[in-house]
Amino acid sequence: MSSPQPGYTSHFGIGNIPFGVASTASRLHPSCVSRFQDSVLFLDKFDAVFKDIDELPQGVFSRTSLNAFTALPRSVHQAVRQRLQALIREDESLRSLPAGSVEKVDVVTMHLPVEVGDFTDFSLSADHVQNASEAMTGKRSAPPSFYHQPVGYAGRCSSLDISGTPVERPIGQYWEGKPGESRIVFGPCKKMDFELELGAIIGKPLPRRERVTASQADKHIFGYVLVNDWSARDIQALEMNPLGPLNGKNAGTTVSPWVVTQDAVNNFRAASPPRLHDVAPYLRDSGNNALSIELQVIVTAPGSEASEGAVSCKSNVSWMYWTLAQCLAHQAIGGCGLRTGDLLATGTVSGQGDGEHGCLLEHMRVGQTPPRAYLEDGETVTLTGYCGEGVGFGECTAVLLPARLLNN
Amino acid sequence: MSSPQPGYTSHFGIGNIPFGVASTASRLHPSCVSRFQDSVLFLDKFDAVFKDIDELPQGVFSRTSLNAFTALPRSVHQAVRQRLQALIREDESLRSLPAGSVEKVDVVTMHLPVEVGDFTDFSLSADHVQNASEAMTGKRSAPPSFYHQPVGYAGRCSSLDISGTPVERPIGQYWEGKPGESRIVFGPCKKMDFELELGAIIGKPLPRRERVTASQADKHIFGYVLVNDWSARDIQALEMNPLGPLNGKNAGTTVSPWVVTQDAVNNFRAASPPRLHDVAPYLRDSGNNALSIELQVIVTAPGSEASEGAVSCKSNVSWMYWTLAQCLAHQAIGGCGLRTGDLLATGTVSGQGDGEHGCLLEHMRVGQTPPRAYLEDGETVTLTGYCGEGVGFGECTAVLLPARLLNN
Repeated sequence: MSSPQPGYTSHFGIGNIPFGVASTASRLHPSCVSRFQDSVLFLDKFDAVFKDIDELPQGVFSRTSLNAFTALPRSVHQAVRQRLQALIREDESLRSLPAGSVEKVDVVTMHLPVEVGDFTDFSLSADHVQNASEAMTGKRSAPPSFYHQPVGYAGRCSSLDISGTPVERPIGQYWEGKPGESRIVFGPCKKMDFELELGAIIGKPLPRRERVTASQADKHIFGYVLVNDWSARDIQALEMNPLGPLNGKNAGTTVSPWVVTQDAVNNFRAASPPRLHDVAPYLRDSGNNALSIELQVIVTAPGSEASEGAVSCKSNVSWMYWTLAQCLAHQAIGGCGLRTGDLLATGTVSGQGDGEHGCLLEHMRVGQTPPRAYLEDGETVTLTGYCGEGVGFGECTAVLLPARLLNN
Repeated sequence: MSSPQPGYTSHFGIGNIPFGVASTASRLHPSCVSRFQDSVLFLDKFDAVFKDIDELPQGVFSRTSLNAFTALPRSVHQAVRQRLQALIREDESLRSLPAGSVEKVDVVTMHLPVEVGDFTDFSLSADHVQNASEAMTGKRSAPPSFYHQPVGYAGRCSSLDISGTPVERPIGQYWEGKPGESRIVFGPCKKMDFELELGAIIGKPLPRRERVTASQADKHIFGYVLVNDWSARDIQALEMNPLGPLNGKNAGTTVSPWVVTQDAVNNFRAASPPRLHDVAPYLRDSGNNALSIELQVIVTAPGSEASEGAVSCKSNVSWMYWTLAQCLAHQAIGGCGLRTGDLLATGTVSGQGDGEHGCLLEHMRVGQTPPRAYLEDGETVTLTGYCGEGVGFGECTAVLLPARLLNN
């Protein structure tokens, strides 16, 4: 398994063919695109190529989001990918693709790939919850239901951002010192953190009250993105007892632009970690449904290039205790249904080692100096994810802007 | 202040003129409506009446949601209401209204009035949090940040239901006995509850990173609805440590059909309860910005009429510690922005007395037999809200259906 290359060309080989939404200076109206190496393919130009694909409605790629396409049957997604792969194999120069369909990636502006109706963020990594517990209390432990079901909360949809959008340090209320034992003050967040996550995007919707077991849930997942769930740890610490996070997670949630399909990641399945308990029937799966995706976080000083940044974390999606398919089954059992475009994210993906901490909170220890503090203004956080053999996610990146005072 | 009447005609006098979305057997396409007494006015028939209202785009009332209308300036909402009030005053028989614009309320089907991009549920009633704490622990207390800021969590948008839609008892995982000290089991929820709430619907959006102080926040609220945040207390108890509620709140959230405007409720302002602490600058208001809305919950046995139901609760919105304007200011300070159609709800509105418990959880006491148990299958829960003098919310009602097993 080779490492991701600068520029991410190696992430977008013939085995990937992801989907996204893009515009350019001459195509101001965003539309649906795919990617091969460093070329972006504008799919609304491929009508003649795709015209014999049954169930692919005319104009579906002219939309400003992928929702209409992701809602189509898996067989249609497969036919479109295979048709593109065949054309590229015939002529890797891409010169024989339809006129005006190809742009270089560096002249393209990417947009949020889907309209998200509901965003649920879970907490699926046993190492993350135990590292975080150790950081805050000195003791490794997990929430009471952690090994029985995926634990999650509803996140904010209005502050989902496409990679590249700056995040502004929020202002809010928090304990000045030790939680519960100090004054509550109002001002700029002092503990800004990132969270390294993978997200699943719902394709085929699940109507209200319909259930699906974990072993059948993947058919509702169109594909995957990287997610940086920026967290204002001090604001979060004050607000989350007892109803969970709110403003601590609302300054921005950065999403990577390329949705990597189920078919692209299916070659990189792995065994799930062993179960500590029997799981409820709706959560049972084959045990071989984890995804082996190498994840990485790079933190870069103000004004520097990503290549000069310090690698803060390397971890792997397959280390998580629960899969996103299990999360989907868990969410559905409550009766709420799932709509096309809904986003389910993993929460921080960590290992136990110091170099495997998917957020800065995990580095903290009561009474000890951590290897680094929380994020500083101007720092850029870049997540990457790579499966292998030309299949990766590119990057999910954003710079942290300074806080503004209340009246600015 | 007179009490709400059966049929709710008295809620919809000349001082109300609320907005909603409706269809009939002969108008299958839902469109925007208003109401006077027991008549529903289809606003797409009023183009000629409204044609000289500046900034009211043609066709805005033909939409399937109120979003486009609610996003318009307050002056436009006022002009439309005043025009309707003038026409009704001229001829209360409504015979001189445009042809085909009037239907009786009993032949009309109401729909969700807005498309909701984000739904935040807060916890604003000090009596509710203390009653709930007493029920669960025997001791009256409030969460650590309660008197410093509105505490809230993001709710699920896909399971928002219009009044009249049945709610199905969910299945899920919960502690069989005492939380933390018993087995975790999987099956139908055994502790189904209602929550009596008021919700604010955002009209004028607040762009990302823009702030607003509580004293200026009302201008972003188009109007108000009643909300029943059905709660599976056993499922919620297991899942909510540490990330808050998820599936315990996802079976359904019932919303009343008529959005009562700011102008209609403005005649019913009241003093807020005294503050225990100074509040942060963004939360400061005049102290006279509470809303005096009498709330009521009626629980009806299977097959009975609402008039035969037992009144479970009478409370008043003005008893809450925080206002919805303060919630709006609090949400905005985190940087997430607010979009037209967003819903912010109060959480359970209670007083301290036994007849003032806005949910059944508050009736429970460790080691005591409560006056009634949690909800039974087939029971109907009806919320009402009434300001006075022809201004009320009608009802927000739904029946509880039995659970289905996993494979049904």
